[in-house]
Amino acid sequence: MKKPALAIVKIGGNVIEDATALSEFLELFAQLPAPKILVHGGGKRATQLGAQLGIPSKLIQGRRITDAPSLEVAIMVYAGLLNKTIVAGLQARNCNAIGLSGADGNALMAHKRPVKEIDYGYVGDVDGINNNTISALLNAGLVPVFCALTHDGKGQMLNTNADTIASELAIGLANDFDTVLYYCFEKPGVLRKLEDENSVITHINASYYQELLHAGIIADGMLPKMQNCFHALRHRVSRVCIGHIQMLQPGHTRYTTLTL
Amino acid sequence: MKKPALAIVKIGGNVIEDATALSEFLELFAQLPAPKILVHGGGKRATQLGAQLGIPSKLIQGRRITDAPSLEVAIMVYAGLLNKTIVAGLQARNCNAIGLSGADGNALMAHKRPVKEIDYGYVGDVDGINNNTISALLNAGLVPVFCALTHDGKGQMLNTNADTIASELAIGLANDFDTVLYYCFEKPGVLRKLEDENSVITHINASYYQELLHAGIIADGMLPKMQNCFHALRHRVSRVCIGHIQMLQPGHTRYTTLTL
Repeated sequence: MKKPALAIVKIGGNVIEDATALSEFLELFAQLPAPKILVHGGGKRATQLGAQLGIPSKLIQGRRITDAPSLEVAIMVYAGLLNKTIVAGLQARNCNAIGLSGADGNALMAHKRPVKEIDYGYVGDVDGINNNTISALLNAGLVPVFCALTHDGKGQMLNTNADTIASELAIGLANDFDTVLYYCFEKPGVLRKLEDENSVITHINASYYQELLHAGIIADGMLPKMQNCFHALRHRVSRVCIGHIQMLQPGHTRYTTLTL
Repeated sequence: MKKPALAIVKIGGNVIEDATALSEFLELFAQLPAPKILVHGGGKRATQLGAQLGIPSKLIQGRRITDAPSLEVAIMVYAGLLNKTIVAGLQARNCNAIGLSGADGNALMAHKRPVKEIDYGYVGDVDGINNNTISALLNAGLVPVFCALTHDGKGQMLNTNADTIASELAIGLANDFDTVLYYCFEKPGVLRKLEDENSVITHINASYYQELLHAGIIADGMLPKMQNCFHALRHRVSRVCIGHIQMLQPGHTRYTTLTL
């Protein structure tokens, strides 16, 4: 039996923090056929609030550390301000959104990242998703909107990368759905030449990915993003699309599709 | 056919802000039989955060005004920090809580309070509840945890009194459930003598309420609370209970029950 399609869309700070981009995105997302799920990152708002409250960003070896005060700020901004702005904005566009952190309905179970060289603090590595909760919401016609927070089941909220949450959701739901993962970011797709926005590579499969890696076309910040995408594809996610938010528009073709 | 029982419990700042009281409450609430709903207020945390951010509390004629910056603070604290602390705490106690504002699943529809003598700002008067959403969540075995925020369906979040949200939920669900409303507050119940905590009146019906009103035993801060309770009872809520959080303990009898 053919599985129903499920779109999982991830947006980051570049969309959330720009009122025009956010409004355009909400229109596009609201018009996508259901079932669908939105995952949003945090952006600079949490850093701003932390600075206003005199909570410095803590970095060790260039990595951001989530100490207890930073976690409180993240919870306020991600689960509070950003999540409710998005949910209320989708409701205004007749999209029956419901905001969630990983603790809500025990949707995303995680554990605090074990301390090796670096203690990342209250950062969660995802153990799995709760299909019962998410299916119940989708079956009720609701549209889950996840912020980048999980919990450990023992009362502790944890900060978790939004890209990872999106791919874990797509993987965890692949048994029941034909899951397509959309990563919206600041570029129109994977570019053959970094400085040329017209050089979007429209399709990359696993073998072409190896070629692009060897040719050094995929490097730096794009590398972990692509690794995350192929991880999802190897775990039965049907398709991953990378590009501007406009890729959600029917008929738009200028973005990168990844398949195995 | 007998309707299933549904407990709707409201807690305020006095419980939320005291770590020991909150932990005790979460234990008691987790042990209540489902279906059940929790509604929580805000407490002083929002005022504190506002002060830290240099956003002064705005009062007109002694009434709190919710201007745009205060609303942002309320969303961060109520829907973010407090709601997720409570949800994660309930999850740790095997209670499958799901945090909600009125915008989530369009659960609580409201309109901005019309300006008469005072412009209260972004304050919402509840128009109704969304039985479809709430029933879907309850049927999935989830335990809704509402913060004191609603929305207007046009993208605007609104600040709404938690007592009112609790009674609107109890009234709106009375068709499908035998709803019992529990208001936890800082006193063990309605007191015959304000200074004597042993003078709890255990049962008040509508005619006894009139007597107590005429005798001046119910006055001041208790008056709007009681009006709200009798409003709920007149709209088919089965029973309203007022007292300390310990009233949720099986066998505890020292609290006030209100009926028609």
